[in-house]
Amino acid sequence: MKKKNKKVNAAILIIGNEILSGRTQDKNVSFISNWLNLKCGISVNEVRIIPDLEPVIVKNILELSNKFHYVFTTGGIGPTHDDITAKSISKAFKVKYEYHKEAFKILENYYGKSKFNDGRKKMAKMPRGSKLIYNPSSAAPGFITKNVISLPGVPSILNSMIENCKPYLIKGLKVHSKTLNLYTVESNISKQLSIIQKKYKSYVDIGSYPFFRLGKIGVSIVARSTSKIKLQKTKTELIKLAKLKKIKTFKI
Amino acid sequence: MKKKNKKVNAAILIIGNEILSGRTQDKNVSFISNWLNLKCGISVNEVRIIPDLEPVIVKNILELSNKFHYVFTTGGIGPTHDDITAKSISKAFKVKYEYHKEAFKILENYYGKSKFNDGRKKMAKMPRGSKLIYNPSSAAPGFITKNVISLPGVPSILNSMIENCKPYLIKGLKVHSKTLNLYTVESNISKQLSIIQKKYKSYVDIGSYPFFRLGKIGVSIVARSTSKIKLQKTKTELIKLAKLKKIKTFKI
Repeated sequence: MKKKNKKVNAAILIIGNEILSGRTQDKNVSFISNWLNLKCGISVNEVRIIPDLEPVIVKNILELSNKFHYVFTTGGIGPTHDDITAKSISKAFKVKYEYHKEAFKILENYYGKSKFNDGRKKMAKMPRGSKLIYNPSSAAPGFITKNVISLPGVPSILNSMIENCKPYLIKGLKVHSKTLNLYTVESNISKQLSIIQKKYKSYVDIGSYPFFRLGKIGVSIVARSTSKIKLQKTKTELIKLAKLKKIKTFKI
Repeated sequence: MKKKNKKVNAAILIIGNEILSGRTQDKNVSFISNWLNLKCGISVNEVRIIPDLEPVIVKNILELSNKFHYVFTTGGIGPTHDDITAKSISKAFKVKYEYHKEAFKILENYYGKSKFNDGRKKMAKMPRGSKLIYNPSSAAPGFITKNVISLPGVPSILNSMIENCKPYLIKGLKVHSKTLNLYTVESNISKQLSIIQKKYKSYVDIGSYPFFRLGKIGVSIVARSTSKIKLQKTKTELIKLAKLKKIKTFKI
């Protein structure tokens, strides 16, 4: 993994009618986003969920790959007719959609020559010039084409492949976070919170997230920053605010 | 709810750093999408997850509200500094961001005059001309501005409000679905599946979703259509395919 001390961002493009229709609950966004931030210092700045339609995929690949350092796609790289991610990326970048020699060999070895049918062969077809993301759990590789990294939709397979994306990524500054949980309601602290946010505007992002827990109402205040020092200062001010307002804090 | 027999679509815009960073797992997409389809015959055609940044919200509101019949936003309508959805929608549509009289009264009654502080008052500020979506669980109403419906991010509160969106929506044709679960791998049936999909191209969407269950590998074939008759015909062909290939089917 190459190292650079700057902010690096990414988008995630979830391709699949099953997520859009609500049939399947997406689990990949939070997994990829957490991994990118913790392991690579890369922030996810936008996510889109779109249907399995070629013109829609092409348009979104072009828009997002122009706008962000990296685009991670999930879904649509299997053997069936609705798996059109590789073909659509080829169209978007105007490169040939063809067999990737190494991917073909990997899959031929995995299935054995006699069982290597057309559906399985399809998984070796990729945009020309793609590099492989190896798949330790079910052989069919993902691939990177320019700044677009294509992974499968099944979470367990995606999770097993994610570390193999690392060599292709530039490392950015990690965003650290500190959380303070308060037994109060948001509107009790919103004014003071706004003052603290303004004070650290350029360095720290403060988010406020209400929740219900064991019948009690609370708020999690999450501060995020690339600077650990600024983050500690923010947390100290938040603790001071809680004391001033006589609000109980607790750890989860 | 008004009735019209045509395809009606929607987008969902999730506004919130906590979802983008992976800290919080989104649960609203599948809930809203399922509800819209089952109760209103409205299909969700795109989802975006974006940060709490005014220019980003403005841009996405304009893009999505031009492209789809309805846009559902979630998040950013609470009392804290990072709740900027209402203000951003006002900017997008170039209308005043001001107190909504009825919302103000609802919140004043709920909190009581002495405890109705600035943070709580903020939740009564909306784009001029908005209509209210009543909130039976925590008072602060959502609102509809042109074709954009703004709901809170906390799933339990959102869920309690969703039925109150109905009067503002035009009803479309419901998409029905049939699922066939097969103990096989996708690449074993991909060729025949593609032939069936081509045959019913204009009426039925067939999706293929691999899964692991109790140590066994399987595929769920999901056919979706506004025509129940075409859907039944598709399922009959799928069952025929399973028999021909000697694949066991099962119900979940």
